[in-house]
Amino acid sequence: VSDSTKRLIPLAAMERILKQAGAERVSDKAKTAMKEVVEEIVEKISKDAIRYAEHAGRKTVKSEDIKLAVKQR
Amino acid sequence: VSDSTKRLIPLAAMERILKQAGAERVSDKAKTAMKEVVEEIVEKISKDAIRYAEHAGRKTVKSEDIKLAVKQR
Repeated sequence: VSDSTKRLIPLAAMERILKQAGAERVSDKAKTAMKEVVEEIVEKISKDAIRYAEHAGRKTVKSEDIKLAVKQR
Repeated sequence: VSDSTKRLIPLAAMERILKQAGAERVSDKAKTAMKEVVEEIVEKISKDAIRYAEHAGRKTVKSEDIKLAVKQR
């Protein structure tokens, strides 16, 4: 995962999401693990979606590119 | 995806991530599609991780719970 992506998804959001899903407590390492997973997934989907947009002759990434990228995971 | 989770991951971050991955332009619907996908994934991993923590007799979600939840996707 690139350094730039790392700054985009806040670590604190991971704890809030886990708490809202029902977690009583969340370890610091669990927050970091969740953040890393999310970043990897988002980066993979992004790269695939961009490839699909290019394949369709577009410079704009559209929702159908994202949806195809998710399906192909 | 719950309403609470929806407020935790900023829509603008999706565009920044896609741009940093190399997208020239990103449609509004693509941003929303990406956000929805990320939210669904995070919510699913969270719920599974919480279940694994409970199964291990813990009230604290640890990184091994997150890792197992990701593996089991």
